[in-house]
Amino acid sequence: MLEELKQQVYEANMELPRRGLITYTWGNVSAVDRAAGCMVIKPSGVDYEELSPEDMVVVNLDGEQVEGRYRPSSDTATHLELYRAYDKIGGIVHTHSPEAVAWAQAGRDIPLYGTTHADYFLGEIPCARNLTPQEIQDAYEKNTGAVIIETFRTRGINPMYTPAVLCKNHGPFAWGKDAAEAVHNAVVLEEVAKMARLTEAIAPNVKPAPDSIKEKHFYRKHGENAYYGQEVK
Amino acid sequence: MLEELKQQVYEANMELPRRGLITYTWGNVSAVDRAAGCMVIKPSGVDYEELSPEDMVVVNLDGEQVEGRYRPSSDTATHLELYRAYDKIGGIVHTHSPEAVAWAQAGRDIPLYGTTHADYFLGEIPCARNLTPQEIQDAYEKNTGAVIIETFRTRGINPMYTPAVLCKNHGPFAWGKDAAEAVHNAVVLEEVAKMARLTEAIAPNVKPAPDSIKEKHFYRKHGENAYYGQEVK
Amino acid sequence: MLEELKQQVYEANMELPRRGLITYTWGNVSAVDRAAGCMVIKPSGVDYEELSPEDMVVVNLDGEQVEGRYRPSSDTATHLELYRAYDKIGGIVHTHSPEAVAWAQAGRDIPLYGTTHADYFLGEIPCARNLTPQEIQDAYEKNTGAVIIETFRTRGINPMYTPAVLCKNHGPFAWGKDAAEAVHNAVVLEEVAKMARLTEAIAPNVKPAPDSIKEKHFYRKHGENAYYGQEVK
Amino acid sequence: MLEELKQQVYEANMELPRRGLITYTWGNVSAVDRAAGCMVIKPSGVDYEELSPEDMVVVNLDGEQVEGRYRPSSDTATHLELYRAYDKIGGIVHTHSPEAVAWAQAGRDIPLYGTTHADYFLGEIPCARNLTPQEIQDAYEKNTGAVIIETFRTRGINPMYTPAVLCKNHGPFAWGKDAAEAVHNAVVLEEVAKMARLTEAIAPNVKPAPDSIKEKHFYRKHGENAYYGQEVK
Repeated sequence: MLEELKQQVYEANMELPRRGLITYTWGNVSAVDRAAGCMVIKPSGVDYEELSPEDMVVVNLDGEQVEGRYRPSSDTATHLELYRAYDKIGGIVHTHSPEAVAWAQAGRDIPLYGTTHADYFLGEIPCARNLTPQEIQDAYEKNTGAVIIETFRTRGINPMYTPAVLCKNHGPFAWGKDAAEAVHNAVVLEEVAKMARLTEAIAPNVKPAPDSIKEKHFYRKHGENAYYGQEVK
Repeated sequence: MLEELKQQVYEANMELPRRGLITYTWGNVSAVDRAAGCMVIKPSGVDYEELSPEDMVVVNLDGEQVEGRYRPSSDTATHLELYRAYDKIGGIVHTHSPEAVAWAQAGRDIPLYGTTHADYFLGEIPCARNLTPQEIQDAYEKNTGAVIIETFRTRGINPMYTPAVLCKNHGPFAWGKDAAEAVHNAVVLEEVAKMARLTEAIAPNVKPAPDSIKEKHFYRKHGENAYYGQEVK
Repeated sequence: MLEELKQQVYEANMELPRRGLITYTWGNVSAVDRAAGCMVIKPSGVDYEELSPEDMVVVNLDGEQVEGRYRPSSDTATHLELYRAYDKIGGIVHTHSPEAVAWAQAGRDIPLYGTTHADYFLGEIPCARNLTPQEIQDAYEKNTGAVIIETFRTRGINPMYTPAVLCKNHGPFAWGKDAAEAVHNAVVLEEVAKMARLTEAIAPNVKPAPDSIKEKHFYRKHGENAYYGQEVK
Repeated sequence: MLEELKQQVYEANMELPRRGLITYTWGNVSAVDRAAGCMVIKPSGVDYEELSPEDMVVVNLDGEQVEGRYRPSSDTATHLELYRAYDKIGGIVHTHSPEAVAWAQAGRDIPLYGTTHADYFLGEIPCARNLTPQEIQDAYEKNTGAVIIETFRTRGINPMYTPAVLCKNHGPFAWGKDAAEAVHNAVVLEEVAKMARLTEAIAPNVKPAPDSIKEKHFYRKHGENAYYGQEVK
């Protein structure tokens, strides 16, 4: 079942080492088929060079494994929590890419310093709070998703306009309309995280970019008045 | 029409990923044929691996599309503004290369710290001011060019001797006698930006290089007394 | 003798340049066969591109060369000291990987800032003290091992749960159940060292990650309640 | 004439892009044949991908071109000055490798922070002073060599034990017994420069390594009591 989605998830996972986002098995991509009520995700801890499309694991939205000879990613419950809360996202990715991890370990939002950031994210990339010891003990991976959702809700950030988050002392999650777009956003996040670090190294007291530039660039590429790229017929 | 120029512009664009200056489609190169009154430029938002020379778009110097099945780069109006103001330049490139972007996001000129810089640029690389909200609303891309031109004019910088600029909170533009030289200058700019960052990391209070060294190196490679390289017969 | 172990040690050594951990011949991997009372180690100062499995050198646990046309690594006595003290380790690696060296030259432990670190090391990576001039003169390489062992003992760190160390003004050693795992841990150490540096660049007063996160991630991958990866049947 | 030396100089030059030490044509390697009274050096400003062994230029030790269709490197007079002063060196290299350039632009010696440095250089890598405007005007390249020689003489540094220098606001020169060793030392210099920068980023008030470690590592690899590597028969 879901052969095409497995192929997409497989290819999105294989893009992670090609783009330099992962070391060893430190990442996972999933995609959802909402009609089937199922998510396809990378198996846990299997080397990328040994993966094939049929190794992708199918679980239903309650987290029960439906297909696959391997265990699903240990972060499965985080992915599911996000799919259940955000009904317009189709793909999710988690990595330990070093520039994004550095901001997560620093416990800081990534400020919007320029147009590279504003072309993809309408504001700072938020850093979610640590889980409490109780939340870790109760259901670590599920609560990781819950704290992400809490962060966007309490701070009034639209997850479709800022499709990435940093989990404190951990690392980034990014998402998109499908698995490929989620990985694309994770690549951009890593580049933006690096640029922000370099910017602060050069100018320690730098301020975020003006709202006028942020909005111009975001809406040049997104929404009904976008004019970047080619029209999709 | 302009088949040879399209080939040159295509090759100059393809040099961007090879030199590590771009992620995804974040860059564009153009060249001008002043006799024909036309500019050739990369299409907007098309993947580099899918580009071919015939995909290059031809627009006239008023910005009207003359040829090509794709829309031209969204930065087309910036390129045109520069070609109209600087009649000796033949090629222009825009990227989001991370080291140059960091200086642009920091809102700082790149100081001339050494001979690598002075071999190509006769002084600091200027950082142009932000556009006003009104300038953004009226004609963002055209006014990006206008602010670059204003920067060189008001600061008395010769754009032929300092063939690059940083646009605040955005990124670099570089130019040259043709598309290949523009890309060459963009590669040097990125390297010089990196070296300047590393220099300040090691010596936070460093001063720019002496004028005697700046001028020796620039004129060793440029102008009628140059003696670097081979004579072009 | 020990043909299979030589092959493993050869492959683990060849992984060092592939993973970007070494320049020229600046590294060595060994493995031990405790039943045979022998260690297999890379020869000293031989180029990686010229190595073959049969070039690996066999020494007994007293340091006497048993087989091989080359001299063993100049760090042989350090490896032996560690094998004699830690009876559960099967492989050891030494490199001059730049991020780990930077912490060693700084004389600092690498703090545990996040889950990437906690997935492999149950606490900070310790930096061992300098050898005294007398210790250097008496038996430099053997005493390098002795000071590592002293560090773990006096600080109460379990070397099986924190399988790496920094030698002050020198560089890292890492180990594992075999040569491949030792190299794996050295790769992780380098990545963790880099992430910690970037974290402090962004947040100079950052604190280590909470113990709850450290323990959750370590024991998610290690020990009897681990649930990361696939079951080994 | 000097076909074998041309081949060696060609190969040493081609090693520069492979090792990531240069951008475009920003480097040159030479070697000397003292019996013939001649130096072989890379031509000025010729792309590396177009070079062949027969393009190498032969000049005598007075700087007169003896053979070759191209002009020699613009830094020829610097190389000659060093060969005339240091009769035991056989090869010289100049690059603009970014980590070494950063220290040169900062105007700082590279401190000896660890064994990676001490394995090759018996003390800090000195940064030579700026040339005066008069020295630049009189004979820039020759005086670059003269100031290097002055630096080693006045500071009492043995150029055979510290085979590299930084020229202020410019970049590094390195040397060795032949062209290959000169390039090897330039690669090590770049790595050591990077490690020193990272070390200071982590520990701003770090001190150089103790003399006991410096001397142990240097003499482990150099001089009559060396025991690193294999015996050369």
